[in-house]
Amino acid sequence: MPDVVVVGSIALDSLQTPFGRVDEVAGGSATYFSLAARHFASVGIVGVAGEDFPRAHLDGLVERGIDITGLEVRSGATFRWAGRYENDLNVAHTLDTQLNVFAAFRPRIPESYRTSHNLFLGNIAPSLQREVLDQVERPAFTAMDTMNFWIQGNHTELSSVMRRVDAVLINEAEARQFAGSHNIAHAARYIQDLGPRIVVVKKGEYGSVLFHRDEHFVAPAFPLEDVRDPTGAGDSYAGAFVGYLVRARRIDDVTLRQAVVVAGVVASYTCEEFGVGRLTTLTRDEIANRVRLFRKYTEFDEEMF
Amino acid sequence: MPDVVVVGSIALDSLQTPFGRVDEVAGGSATYFSLAARHFASVGIVGVAGEDFPRAHLDGLVERGIDITGLEVRSGATFRWAGRYENDLNVAHTLDTQLNVFAAFRPRIPESYRTSHNLFLGNIAPSLQREVLDQVERPAFTAMDTMNFWIQGNHTELSSVMRRVDAVLINEAEARQFAGSHNIAHAARYIQDLGPRIVVVKKGEYGSVLFHRDEHFVAPAFPLEDVRDPTGAGDSYAGAFVGYLVRARRIDDVTLRQAVVVAGVVASYTCEEFGVGRLTTLTRDEIANRVRLFRKYTEFDEEMF
Repeated sequence: MPDVVVVGSIALDSLQTPFGRVDEVAGGSATYFSLAARHFASVGIVGVAGEDFPRAHLDGLVERGIDITGLEVRSGATFRWAGRYENDLNVAHTLDTQLNVFAAFRPRIPESYRTSHNLFLGNIAPSLQREVLDQVERPAFTAMDTMNFWIQGNHTELSSVMRRVDAVLINEAEARQFAGSHNIAHAARYIQDLGPRIVVVKKGEYGSVLFHRDEHFVAPAFPLEDVRDPTGAGDSYAGAFVGYLVRARRIDDVTLRQAVVVAGVVASYTCEEFGVGRLTTLTRDEIANRVRLFRKYTEFDEEMF
Repeated sequence: MPDVVVVGSIALDSLQTPFGRVDEVAGGSATYFSLAARHFASVGIVGVAGEDFPRAHLDGLVERGIDITGLEVRSGATFRWAGRYENDLNVAHTLDTQLNVFAAFRPRIPESYRTSHNLFLGNIAPSLQREVLDQVERPAFTAMDTMNFWIQGNHTELSSVMRRVDAVLINEAEARQFAGSHNIAHAARYIQDLGPRIVVVKKGEYGSVLFHRDEHFVAPAFPLEDVRDPTGAGDSYAGAFVGYLVRARRIDDVTLRQAVVVAGVVASYTCEEFGVGRLTTLTRDEIANRVRLFRKYTEFDEEMF
């Protein structure tokens, strides 16, 4: 069985940023998550693609050691998302969404995945996230993401899913929206009070903050000179975060902080090329190099007063 | 002579935030700068107040060791600024500006200040910043701030002032505006190419980034649960930054990073109460405590791969 099971979208994305555009490239939260997590752990995908999803992309996942037993290919078209980013790359403007085969998606966890110890619920309907939780056998660690659409329309159901997970990874704006508080520390505590002991608030180019029980850890983003496309940064952040924790074989304050640093580094690579371009070529050595640079860019001398 | 001379505004501020409001409290860039810098160095103010500026505020500065020889009190009313902050405390909305005695301000450096080794040019007209530079005897270290108003209307004159300083401290949005580039690293290099070897880009609640020659240092903001009023955060950041460097008696990568951390900590205190409230009671021990906490919130274990 895979170390980590991810349930999420498989998509064909059309993306415009100030630095260029691409049409119908492979994307979706499960794709980004698995391409990031594979550096640290074996990953199995649960998701659905249409018949038009290029076989080469599926082969690309398999070549990188990703288990696609749970990735159904259904008759019909693949989920499509078209988005545009202005100069402020933190904000995606949706141009078009076509759910296609994703509209009727009911996640089914393959037998070979059911005893996997780690689960990530990507950004899908809270009702589907719950169905997934009902199918797995008490994983050791479950993390989840969500988005504004579900926060607005399914707040109660989303809260009930959150009660059943160990970690919530969420965007800054969405944490504020979900908790009804502008202050990030208050918003994180609101989520922790539902049950999750771990909350990671992702701030895009401003980094992320980890809340773990009463501890917190603040990490700036890795400084990039050339950002081309932030699509998938959050999902690849989650993949590296969960993957790193699985590999570390323990989840404590030390490994959680390391996971945040590694996740930020992997997300920074994601932003350097359009779509999954950079993620498909990324190596463990490159990740390690940038972690060392991150330390260099953030360290300071203790002796001050 | 004072260790540091600051030239800037003396104001009566009326401030509204989601957490309350105050009317006509002491403010201005020179006030905030000096109250922050005093913890590390002796400070002399150059500025102008009107007859209506409360004597108690001037006494408060003197009691805290600040030299006000260069603070002229002129007949007329003190500069007034009224501003409002919404939930996003990073953005101040100006409700009213009354220049009053500040309209005819021509900075005059007192004889006793002229050989001071360090100079900070607060956010005033670039033409006045230049007049100050012409009056001092080659200080060892000169830093400056500016704002969108001068960037838009006096770009050329502002650039010529920047050519004569060692360090520019500037807001993120203003750095982008000045350099015509959304990317902060590009914007900082644009400023460095004018001459300053040090550029600090201040990002409000997202921290700050130091560019020093080819090095850079990224620091998140100290995480605050209770922000009441961000007015003066940037000026107190500058005061602590310059003051710390003066006290360290050297300006190298190690001390610059420490100065960024201390500056962020002092600015975080500034935001906890309205106006200069928190700055007037702040102690060196409190600064040192929060620097230790900052380390705790940002440190992570090297051993990762």
